[in-house]
Amino acid sequence: LKEGKKNHFQKTIDELQPYDIAKIYSSIPAKHRTRFLLFINVEQIADLIQELEKDLQFEALTKLGIEKSGQVMDLMDNDDLASLLEHLSKDKMEELLSGMKKEESKIVQDIMNYPPETAGRLMTNRFVWIKDHYTIRETVEKLKTFAEYSETINYLYVIDQNKHLVGVVSYRDIILANENEKIQDIMYSRVISVTADTDQEEVARLIERYDFLAIPVVDNGVLVGIVTVDDIIDVVISEATEDIEKLSASGKAIDFDTKAYVAAYRRLPWLILLLFIGIVSGTIISQFEETLSTVVALAFFMPMIAGMTGNTGTQSLAVVVRGLITREVDRKTAAQLIFRELKVGLIIGFICGILIALIALVWQGSAVLGLVVGSSLIMTLVIGTLAGTIIPLILYRLNVDPAIASGPLITTLNDIVSLFIYFGMATLFINQLM
Amino acid sequence: LKEGKKNHFQKTIDELQPYDIAKIYSSIPAKHRTRFLLFINVEQIADLIQELEKDLQFEALTKLGIEKSGQVMDLMDNDDLASLLEHLSKDKMEELLSGMKKEESKIVQDIMNYPPETAGRLMTNRFVWIKDHYTIRETVEKLKTFAEYSETINYLYVIDQNKHLVGVVSYRDIILANENEKIQDIMYSRVISVTADTDQEEVARLIERYDFLAIPVVDNGVLVGIVTVDDIIDVVISEATEDIEKLSASGKAIDFDTKAYVAAYRRLPWLILLLFIGIVSGTIISQFEETLSTVVALAFFMPMIAGMTGNTGTQSLAVVVRGLITREVDRKTAAQLIFRELKVGLIIGFICGILIALIALVWQGSAVLGLVVGSSLIMTLVIGTLAGTIIPLILYRLNVDPAIASGPLITTLNDIVSLFIYFGMATLFINQLM
Repeated sequence: LKEGKKNHFQKTIDELQPYDIAKIYSSIPAKHRTRFLLFINVEQIADLIQELEKDLQFEALTKLGIEKSGQVMDLMDNDDLASLLEHLSKDKMEELLSGMKKEESKIVQDIMNYPPETAGRLMTNRFVWIKDHYTIRETVEKLKTFAEYSETINYLYVIDQNKHLVGVVSYRDIILANENEKIQDIMYSRVISVTADTDQEEVARLIERYDFLAIPVVDNGVLVGIVTVDDIIDVVISEATEDIEKLSASGKAIDFDTKAYVAAYRRLPWLILLLFIGIVSGTIISQFEETLSTVVALAFFMPMIAGMTGNTGTQSLAVVVRGLITREVDRKTAAQLIFRELKVGLIIGFICGILIALIALVWQGSAVLGLVVGSSLIMTLVIGTLAGTIIPLILYRLNVDPAIASGPLITTLNDIVSLFIYFGMATLFINQLM
Repeated sequence: LKEGKKNHFQKTIDELQPYDIAKIYSSIPAKHRTRFLLFINVEQIADLIQELEKDLQFEALTKLGIEKSGQVMDLMDNDDLASLLEHLSKDKMEELLSGMKKEESKIVQDIMNYPPETAGRLMTNRFVWIKDHYTIRETVEKLKTFAEYSETINYLYVIDQNKHLVGVVSYRDIILANENEKIQDIMYSRVISVTADTDQEEVARLIERYDFLAIPVVDNGVLVGIVTVDDIIDVVISEATEDIEKLSASGKAIDFDTKAYVAAYRRLPWLILLLFIGIVSGTIISQFEETLSTVVALAFFMPMIAGMTGNTGTQSLAVVVRGLITREVDRKTAAQLIFRELKVGLIIGFICGILIALIALVWQGSAVLGLVVGSSLIMTLVIGTLAGTIIPLILYRLNVDPAIASGPLITTLNDIVSLFIYFGMATLFINQLM
């Protein structure tokens, strides 16, 4: 198929979605890819490149040569192009940008100047704006002229003579209106917009809340771009993945294709940190060596107490981190949440504490041991729950990502606290325990 | 505002987004809500109700009385209505359905018959279909007639005389085409569709992959509904939340508003399970009581070894669970992944093992203790990594949600294994350790 019959090949390609074309492209041997690129037109190459993995994107752009890659890059969505180029060295990037039209390369460079994870990085300028005094007929004419420039979303944004965003109409509104009606009479004028430096999570929250397909980005009232829902789905997925990475301290951006040594390198910092915190736990235990060697049975309950305290902290942490995704938290909500978790800690503390006290009594035949283990567990569970709630809230307050108080950190902190409480209680009752 | 001036009030409401109306409605005292509902029309009530919390939804429907609530429910999106009604008792549900138009209530009941988390549950019938032999002019006329029936997405689905889905056109295509062109000549005919029983994660994957705004649902080729991107964002968010809930065993559906005893009740099963697994760990340690009482220093390294093994398992687990969201895994990918994680386990095992051996040597002044601790850590880290990879893959293979092999389960399993290895090694070298 990919050898001779150019016509037949092109007809097949024309009917496929970009994702599928990219899949075929990735699967053919590298030496045939140059021919593949010769067989399709620049619009198709632009669509194809946007769907490829990063390394194949560069390969393809290099294969094309400066001039043609410039043409292709002119056609790519600016936000996608910006996120591709930012991974290149400065020289390579400037070389590629030199092949583009001046105004297009300027836009891409502007996008790259916005901080990461903001609306500015996600926005595209491939949208059609119309003026508020246009009639429907004028609008349709403008649409026919600029058809290829618009991402396929449903909205047209309306600006006044100062380029200020004043309204929005949908393609459907245009179809349903009469030819001579004016845009300003049919547009919806209470447009919700963001600025270029709005955090991408906030943009996602607005789009999710209002079920928008896109949201306009303004700079001092002037419309500068739009963020579309497909970018937002990617944001939602990557933010959730980041939360999970942080909560489980599993290392940044490890997927199925990551090389073993890279994955190990990304996970090691956490593990070495844990190792040293483990030494701290060890030092605490060594302080209680006498207690422990007197009542060796104390060691039996160590993993249980540490494990449960660690887990209860993670449970609270997960609730707070996920809750912050869809809700803002003020002082009042924070206080309510802490009070709620205090109650949760007390309930689960008393139930688990009494349960383990009974088990310890039956298993080791010592009421005092039961009392020590049970009362320690009540205290550590309450403290664990509160730590898992308060620490991420403080981080949130300080504008630090609360998920960074990740699972293992909270777990290990709780480990240390629980060892102190447990061995402290045991030392207190050491005479009764013997 | 909400008291007297009905006209002014209505004008304000008309300009607000449903989400904001819902926020105002929720914030006013319950006794004023009835009056609020009287002041706005049924379309607005329908939009409002879709944005409310579950309990306020029922409250509002009850306030309206059977007849008016029926009118409102006729106007609601069928998928939203279905997910509201499924939480009611059978009697209450039938009472509410009785106020609706026959054909509308039938559709809602049909939706509720699909299994949860499938395309059938998410789809709406509020879309406009057109026939392939329509001209653009006929299409526009049909659109004008059915304007209020369509969700505001960009696509029109095209069916043939047998109601089979044969193509799709966008509103933009309609605007750009000539009045006399036929739909079948401008439509895109390689439509990607799903069936009503397609899993919602698969639907989300397709919409994300192809950047669609909606995807059609077919039953034996016949178009029965569409799933829109706003529902998919909700799916992506709730699936990610579920993953986090399972990975951290934080209990189902606990948010900031959950009552303390409900939250405690949802978390307790995990904690009690952990408690009993903790007893198992304790029993293992008690088997090695002699070893432990001979060399109490062994206890110092217990939390570190268990903690690190648990965490390395969670790291692998998180990679597998998140990877499965965007990728299907076949036998070959699984084998590659396991091999990769084996290598990762070996790398981090040797680095951390040698490090802790040196620390143990310096701290406790015993080369044998260093050897025991270090070699145990190497083994437990390799096993922990593999367990965190293989267990979720097996569950995936068995069509069980892999996230259910949740953090604490993998952690605790690794706890037990690591205790066995550690004390086993120690017992082996007990003469040298003394």
